[in-house]
Amino acid sequence: MRFVVALGGNALIKHGEKGSYSQQLRNAEATAKQIASLARKHRVVLTHGNGPQVGDLLLDEPDMPLHVLVAQSQGEIGYLLQDVLGDNRVKAATIVTRVEVSKRDPAFRRPTKPIGPFYKRKPTKFRSIEDAGRGYRRVVPSPNPLYIHESDAILSLMSKGIVPIACGGGGIPVSNGSGLNAVIDKDLAAELLARTVKAKRLVILTDVPCVYANYGTDIQEPVDYLSVKDARRWLRAGAFAEGSMKPKVEAAARFAEHGGKTIICALNDLTKALKGKAGTVIE
Amino acid sequence: MRFVVALGGNALIKHGEKGSYSQQLRNAEATAKQIASLARKHRVVLTHGNGPQVGDLLLDEPDMPLHVLVAQSQGEIGYLLQDVLGDNRVKAATIVTRVEVSKRDPAFRRPTKPIGPFYKRKPTKFRSIEDAGRGYRRVVPSPNPLYIHESDAILSLMSKGIVPIACGGGGIPVSNGSGLNAVIDKDLAAELLARTVKAKRLVILTDVPCVYANYGTDIQEPVDYLSVKDARRWLRAGAFAEGSMKPKVEAAARFAEHGGKTIICALNDLTKALKGKAGTVIE
Repeated sequence: MRFVVALGGNALIKHGEKGSYSQQLRNAEATAKQIASLARKHRVVLTHGNGPQVGDLLLDEPDMPLHVLVAQSQGEIGYLLQDVLGDNRVKAATIVTRVEVSKRDPAFRRPTKPIGPFYKRKPTKFRSIEDAGRGYRRVVPSPNPLYIHESDAILSLMSKGIVPIACGGGGIPVSNGSGLNAVIDKDLAAELLARTVKAKRLVILTDVPCVYANYGTDIQEPVDYLSVKDARRWLRAGAFAEGSMKPKVEAAARFAEHGGKTIICALNDLTKALKGKAGTVIE
Repeated sequence: MRFVVALGGNALIKHGEKGSYSQQLRNAEATAKQIASLARKHRVVLTHGNGPQVGDLLLDEPDMPLHVLVAQSQGEIGYLLQDVLGDNRVKAATIVTRVEVSKRDPAFRRPTKPIGPFYKRKPTKFRSIEDAGRGYRRVVPSPNPLYIHESDAILSLMSKGIVPIACGGGGIPVSNGSGLNAVIDKDLAAELLARTVKAKRLVILTDVPCVYANYGTDIQEPVDYLSVKDARRWLRAGAFAEGSMKPKVEAAARFAEHGGKTIICALNDLTKALKGKAGTVIE
């Protein structure tokens, strides 16, 4: 069977960590073991977030366009994942991936995705929003992914039994041959990737054990199964946090509408979740 | 026929340029056209230097290990090359590439490769050399490339008619699964790549039109053909500049010793050189 596995940004840099390379390597080890064990039995394509890494690059290279920083982060994180999978005797290779978006996507009129550091004063160089009490933060458009430019390359590796690492950070956003300063949601890109490689399963690894009903309230309850109808209803009701659980459930709903099955689970529960003993299934 | 084409660092950032992304894109355009025209008739693998880009990254991210910066530069430059080749209707995809070296390589006892910026005072954090009058510069080992970890992925793309962009910046130097703070010479890596993909031709694009006899003297003379015997003799006599023409001729000599033919020519002479009307042939 074909799987797409999506690693959250926290897979490599935990909240509060500085994220040195050796720390990222250590953080990746346990997850790599579980992915390797899956890849020995099935065809796997791996994708990943890049939030903390691209945040660091934004600080270090303020003059470089955001789409180039995404490309750099794909090189950096892809290398690390190739490395840890290789340690587990799984051949993997990173494909630098561009994802087409539309310049007419409404996201370009209304940038909503906060990236990078917090600023005390309102920055003048770019659009920003105020984050309650913590300062200002740059916001960029988060357009919908339309297609993957390097799909042939990804499929070619897959057919040779190599684990492609692709669409890192949601992919480099391009439109008609030009890079754009935007960030594609990595869960929505993972869903597009899953359809592109004709995967039957999408596994979204994150920092919570599953989807919750009434998350963050006194009556919070874990959900082990969600029908696509309920997922859509909850999404409409605004039940999930923006930029966190919402895009994951949206990705799962889209994938279900195309006949796929999604598992959302904690980073270290991959093996358990595949046996139905952890996480939330959406189909 | 199979070709490996190696782009010099100057292909994207000319001497004295700041190297903004749009400037790098413009610089790449003419070369991309010629590579695209070759790729429409033959199987091509593309590789490239990263000197100026990794120099910038060293300044921006002083705490990041050098091998990770090489990985970032592969993402950045690979993305750009995919982009300009795509503009010329050639499908290309970058493979983040690790190249094995030996920790016992004599280069680790005697680092010689200068990288990054010039410093007025002798830096204390890393080994440096004094560059006549211009200050101090960090030096790192430049070990011999032994094999390419991602060779299967590169061959797989090639077999599907996709131009692999691989071994950027000489490849990420690793030994027994660990990244090393070293820089592999990109011409020697290109030669290893050429043998790995069973190429018949290695084309090294650089900023001079050809190999010269007595380069930089009053009796300097262009050489259009060099036998491997003469190449070896001149190399022994120290006729070529370190880190410049020397590794190119060394790569060509090695490739000739394995039955291959190398062309060394100027960046914009690729098409002419393939017709035998420019550059130096070594075989």
